Amino acid sequence: MDEARSRARLSAARVGRLATVRPDGRPHVVACCFALQDDRVWTTVDAKPKATQRLQRLANVRAHPWASLLVDHYEEDWDALWWVRVDGPATVLEDGDELEVALAALIAKYPQYTTALPHGPVIAIGAERWRGWSAR
Amino acid sequence: MDEARSRARLSAARVGRLATVRPDGRPHVVACCFALQDDRVWTTVDAKPKATQRLQRLANVRAHPWASLLVDHYEEDWDALWWVRVDGPATVLEDGDELEVALAALIAKYPQYTTALPHGPVIAIGAERWRGWSAR
Repeated sequence: MDEARSRARLSAARVGRLATVRPDGRPHVVACCFALQDDRVWTTVDAKPKATQRLQRLANVRAHPWASLLVDHYEEDWDALWWVRVDGPATVLEDGDELEVALAALIAKYPQYTTALPHGPVIAIGAERWRGWSAR
Repeated sequence: MDEARSRARLSAARVGRLATVRPDGRPHVVACCFALQDDRVWTTVDAKPKATQRLQRLANVRAHPWASLLVDHYEEDWDALWWVRVDGPATVLEDGDELEVALAALIAKYPQYTTALPHGPVIAIGAERWRGWSAR
């Protein structure tokens, strides 16, 4: 799958899975909402219960500033499978212009956020490496 | 979510996302089919195109023998979200009794495998740490 098609599929997806590395070097993976704009991917940590789980990913990115986001499609017809993955350097945004742009992009993509506006922090990933695969 | 419910939901899920750590320390995540039996989770690498992608996860597990498997449910009603994650030590099975048991479990769960029987290798994860969350 070429990069343009990979971008289109990832951008349209409603959920992704974010892999980071824990401070102790073990892998960590969470489901997350996200928004893509140009070469930035953003996902926010909102103030829901299970704050510990949500904070883990921030600690991970601070210790190992690289992340991988996967979007995939599964169905029982395995000829219809596809996935897209984007990897790049990751940072935690706690304030500043990019945080505001990121939150606006997330709210625009997910109307669910309008009932409980996210304030961040946001994990920002530089969309450097694209991989995509489709079974057909 | 308690461990029994986490196990039931993970066991029933048809697709998971497997996070491992690359030899260079960066995160890696793939969508995968898997089977759970007692305290073992198995996922196989079959002989499809994109062999390089499939071999990456084996190299990762050999370099960093720990893996995390996530199963989650997304829908636009965020009150219906849930996820289950299991983490543990991971090994690559290339032969032996456990490989045979693992392949049999995978074939029993996924009839799709009967048209192209998998031979392995299999990644085996010891299901040591369970985490589960449900929005309601």
